[in-house]
Amino acid sequence: MKALRWHGARDLRLDELQTSAPKHGEVEVQVAYCGICGSDLHEYLDGPHSIPTHEAHPISGCRAPLTLGHEFSGVVSALGDGVEGFEIGDRVAVEPIYRCGHCLYCRNGQYNLCISMGFIGLMGDGGFAERAQVPAYMLHHLPDAVSLRQAVVLEPAAVALHALRQSSLKPGDSCAVFGLGPIGLLLIMLAHLRGIERITAVDIAPERLRLAHEFGACQVLDARNLDVAQHLQRDGGIDCAFEAAGSQATLDAALHSLRKGGEAVLVGLMGEARFDAFHLVNNELRLISSVGYRGVYAELIELLASGKLDLDRVVTRCVLLEQAVSAGFDALLGDKAQIKVLVNPTPALAEA
Amino acid sequence: MKALRWHGARDLRLDELQTSAPKHGEVEVQVAYCGICGSDLHEYLDGPHSIPTHEAHPISGCRAPLTLGHEFSGVVSALGDGVEGFEIGDRVAVEPIYRCGHCLYCRNGQYNLCISMGFIGLMGDGGFAERAQVPAYMLHHLPDAVSLRQAVVLEPAAVALHALRQSSLKPGDSCAVFGLGPIGLLLIMLAHLRGIERITAVDIAPERLRLAHEFGACQVLDARNLDVAQHLQRDGGIDCAFEAAGSQATLDAALHSLRKGGEAVLVGLMGEARFDAFHLVNNELRLISSVGYRGVYAELIELLASGKLDLDRVVTRCVLLEQAVSAGFDALLGDKAQIKVLVNPTPALAEA
Repeated sequence: MKALRWHGARDLRLDELQTSAPKHGEVEVQVAYCGICGSDLHEYLDGPHSIPTHEAHPISGCRAPLTLGHEFSGVVSALGDGVEGFEIGDRVAVEPIYRCGHCLYCRNGQYNLCISMGFIGLMGDGGFAERAQVPAYMLHHLPDAVSLRQAVVLEPAAVALHALRQSSLKPGDSCAVFGLGPIGLLLIMLAHLRGIERITAVDIAPERLRLAHEFGACQVLDARNLDVAQHLQRDGGIDCAFEAAGSQATLDAALHSLRKGGEAVLVGLMGEARFDAFHLVNNELRLISSVGYRGVYAELIELLASGKLDLDRVVTRCVLLEQAVSAGFDALLGDKAQIKVLVNPTPALAEA
Repeated sequence: MKALRWHGARDLRLDELQTSAPKHGEVEVQVAYCGICGSDLHEYLDGPHSIPTHEAHPISGCRAPLTLGHEFSGVVSALGDGVEGFEIGDRVAVEPIYRCGHCLYCRNGQYNLCISMGFIGLMGDGGFAERAQVPAYMLHHLPDAVSLRQAVVLEPAAVALHALRQSSLKPGDSCAVFGLGPIGLLLIMLAHLRGIERITAVDIAPERLRLAHEFGACQVLDARNLDVAQHLQRDGGIDCAFEAAGSQATLDAALHSLRKGGEAVLVGLMGEARFDAFHLVNNELRLISSVGYRGVYAELIELLASGKLDLDRVVTRCVLLEQAVSAGFDALLGDKAQIKVLVNPTPALAEA
């Protein structure tokens, strides 16, 4: 079968691989769609960041070269021993977090904090392939009302929903989202759906600000033309700021946009950062963070099935596996109008 | 009357002042005791930090030179117009936060976040004087069982209790306190009283570590001889770290001592600070903060009255107003064994 594998920075290859039967506890999924994530782009541009290149990941047993792709959906095509609850032909979404199942965090249900936590598609062979072998615990059944194409966006939506759950945001509060990549846009969509009315969207790309407005932001601010923090302080500051860009400038703006007692939620990844600790303490601010997700897929699948949530709105393009690098990775790097690009490794499973 | 006034850095003067009758809504308190706080020391060493020197504070109407001292207790000696609920002779503790009473925060009961918030004794004439004129809303009646000497330590205890309330710490959790000044030691005393059993105390002064152990810390760590974060990570990290030293090194140690999903509470004041944002997000840590207090005096006075809390244990010395600089301020700056030094401006109100 064909699989898009990471061999090194700027070195993704469409390799032809032999496949074997799924191992004990694993399920083979014929991949319908696999989304390209920001972390895939980082690995492509200047990885490895998360990809194991020397020692194999303790749960997956994999190291580079490996198949990228952790946002995927498909149809069950083979079952390993010991798998219960799934049949060949089942339509599934993958919740791609590896977990050991026995550390303190796993026992508490906080599997996103598992001491051996990893992602299939970054620490193990993922979904940019015709078929993927996935631990059964990663799979969620899809109701008939949920398309495979919508289901592939469950993963970034899960990141956004977990960040919302980590925050103290509640109806009546105001919030701002800094950085309108897929996670930022999904944060707005989901916050709006959860009854948050006063949502401000901040970015430097007009097309993304336009989408944010469509998704529920009542105010959109172009950070190129405005001191955003000063602007938001005119009305007394906001209750909650989501930093979804991963930069020092947006972190500063997020913290300085808050009312006293407000909360900033770090979702974007960055390295060493600075903050004004006097400002933080004197205003009793909270700087919290969110990584991955846990226990959010059921709510999202229910929202999709009910028709209240339409994740297709962030999908801007769908390409075949053969075009994934040129029309997918490179397009995302060069064009701010591209939000979520899907790859369709199995043309027969493509939906209208 | 005599009052110890701040005229400039290293320039505290025992001035002789004329007094007038208390204004509308104010109460004159004959001061029994007034504690020396770290912020008093900062103003003495290299102020002004909080003291208004050009524009008067919007609530107090004061600017330098002004009488320092915000931790004080005493006896009501005169009443302004419009004061209800107090009589001459009442024994009182002062909760020294100025508040406007009508901003959003005051209306929500979050008067420590009042947009004009200030402290009597830093932004208005305070307690290092024979008498102080205090807004009636700052006063708390003292039950007979609570001594004036214990009551003076209510203020730093309030800082510690508010920090505990801001945190997510609950019985069964583990915590560490970094920095064993009066606030750090009171945090340990109060956490212990609230049922926290696994308390680690961290400092570089052996005499303070010894006190922390007496106050309820089950583990004391001398940061001079140990990588504290590494040591605490051996057992998986702690649930909650209180940074009560206000330094970059202790902030780093606090954040790196946490378990995944853990929480650091900034209580100490510092300026620009750094943190490893990748570490914060990847471990889903929370960096929250606490400033002043609100609504905690009643609980503390009840704890004192019941005998469960003995705030006298942090008092290491008591001096007369005339000795406040030499035996108080200078002693605290030079001797780590001094924790809380009280000044007794009215010898007739001194207790055994």
